[in-house]
Amino acid sequence: MNNTELMTSFKEQADRINIVMKEDLASIESPLLAQIIHHAIFQGGKRIRPLLTLLAASLIGPPPPETTRLAISFEYLHAASLLHDDIIDHANLRRGAQTANTLWGMEPVILAGDYLHARAMTLACEAGGPAALALIGLATAAMVESEFLQMHNAREMLISEEKYFQVLMGKTAALIAAACEAGIVCNHGSAAQRLALRTYGTNLGLAFQIIDDLLDYLGDPGKTGKAVGNDFQEGKMTLPLIKTLERAENKDHETLVALLKATSQERREQLPTAHALIEKHQGFVLARTQAELLLTEALAGLVIFDEDHTKAHLTALAYYVLNRDK
Amino acid sequence: MNNTELMTSFKEQADRINIVMKEDLASIESPLLAQIIHHAIFQGGKRIRPLLTLLAASLIGPPPPETTRLAISFEYLHAASLLHDDIIDHANLRRGAQTANTLWGMEPVILAGDYLHARAMTLACEAGGPAALALIGLATAAMVESEFLQMHNAREMLISEEKYFQVLMGKTAALIAAACEAGIVCNHGSAAQRLALRTYGTNLGLAFQIIDDLLDYLGDPGKTGKAVGNDFQEGKMTLPLIKTLERAENKDHETLVALLKATSQERREQLPTAHALIEKHQGFVLARTQAELLLTEALAGLVIFDEDHTKAHLTALAYYVLNRDK
Repeated sequence: MNNTELMTSFKEQADRINIVMKEDLASIESPLLAQIIHHAIFQGGKRIRPLLTLLAASLIGPPPPETTRLAISFEYLHAASLLHDDIIDHANLRRGAQTANTLWGMEPVILAGDYLHARAMTLACEAGGPAALALIGLATAAMVESEFLQMHNAREMLISEEKYFQVLMGKTAALIAAACEAGIVCNHGSAAQRLALRTYGTNLGLAFQIIDDLLDYLGDPGKTGKAVGNDFQEGKMTLPLIKTLERAENKDHETLVALLKATSQERREQLPTAHALIEKHQGFVLARTQAELLLTEALAGLVIFDEDHTKAHLTALAYYVLNRDK
Repeated sequence: MNNTELMTSFKEQADRINIVMKEDLASIESPLLAQIIHHAIFQGGKRIRPLLTLLAASLIGPPPPETTRLAISFEYLHAASLLHDDIIDHANLRRGAQTANTLWGMEPVILAGDYLHARAMTLACEAGGPAALALIGLATAAMVESEFLQMHNAREMLISEEKYFQVLMGKTAALIAAACEAGIVCNHGSAAQRLALRTYGTNLGLAFQIIDDLLDYLGDPGKTGKAVGNDFQEGKMTLPLIKTLERAENKDHETLVALLKATSQERREQLPTAHALIEKHQGFVLARTQAELLLTEALAGLVIFDEDHTKAHLTALAYYVLNRDK
């Protein structure tokens, strides 16, 4: 399958997912609540999580009709967590547009997140049963725990690779893994099949986040919709920097540590210096290699399934994650 | 059953509920998250919602062991919504103690609310099955919708009784009704039994909130832990005031409307004036009569059940709600 065919197929599925979400959200009564939730969901977004649920279910047979409603619960949860995250981070921009909290203030946006959260869990149980809901419950708990871990880590200046991955597990991987596993649950798959998809989803999620971290340094703002070097400016330790600090010695190490202790304005001014040091010590290459390794791990999980159309999609999706530029 | 016996019995049940919550919350990893959630749950609270689930289940036979875990999910949801509400209202005090957002700031408290919310829904499904979860999903959606309705109403100065009750239905009654109905669901009761408990819970919830509104004007701060006249000072239209505005004419009506248009400081200074006008036009008496009527309605729902110990408890609880002073 070439990239264009894949993108077309994903686009068609995403369109179907959007229709089901629009129908489902039509029951909202308050116009303002509806407006905030529509902004949160239909202002961009790649629909990767619901797509994964549908693909995972298709791996083991034709998915039951309710799979799409189960799938959208993962998009809702993702959107709910972004609504609350943007309040917590005081973020003004997401996907090149103003955030909901910038447009409507914190108060209604907290509530809109709660609404989506409750709707997601209700839908997941209705469409996927208690086992699917239990997956979401665990993933949500992991997401919150990892935010607390991240707050705790923020007090230390230098974060180990281990702690970085611990945060990533909860922040991104847990929900993507749940989205994958839920597809198997919904189609009554075996424990081995569930494990395979959990493995796929966890590793895909970790790789996804590493690529995000790389795009923050190396992306084209015209494509990502984000300024370059945001993470560094905020003093956020992501994998390219962590790998560099592990390897750099003496003066290079000191320069980076001094920058991390400096003000965010100094970091913005010295971004080229940091970029050059990461480049010099292979921080970007090593992070990318790590993402590739994780994707190999992800695909290894799928070995128990026949080579068919769906598996080809899941494989292609993994390479898409690796090679995306936005 | 006299009041002391009843209070002793409720206290014993509340202690058991607290133990189950403490055990359940022991799985939280982050110390800060655990601290915030313990503050939200164990800093007071009457445990009325879980108590209602347990009593409702007992009405139709010995409750299955998992009823207590289903019951605590309602306390979690209640606590989660208070955590977010106090952020939204910028509230500093609750139950005579500092609010979580005052102690730890908004960021971790939003997340702690999300954690409790997810835990509540996971637990409800595990312990009560999809039907119990569906009740919680609807109640949560109703709570959020009613907050939006309240924000919308806040822009109008004079609120009708109808709109007041519409907000109350979502804000307080929906979750209490769900807590009652879930007890029947958990013990495999009939549709008629579910309806009876929904009716009981809805009317109890409405009456509960009216008494809250009355206590805001008439309560003893030493007992309620709240200053007198808060609602009026904030320009909040609650039932005593709504009833008064419906009946007051000419000068009295004008005085109250002028105060509602005034600053909150002027309202604080003129609280005795407002109090006297509400008194004069029977606002307090009429609100209380309305609460009594609602409780009669609540108890009428229980007519299909035998007169036994549990029904006596539910009846006594209704009178406790009416006569409470905190």
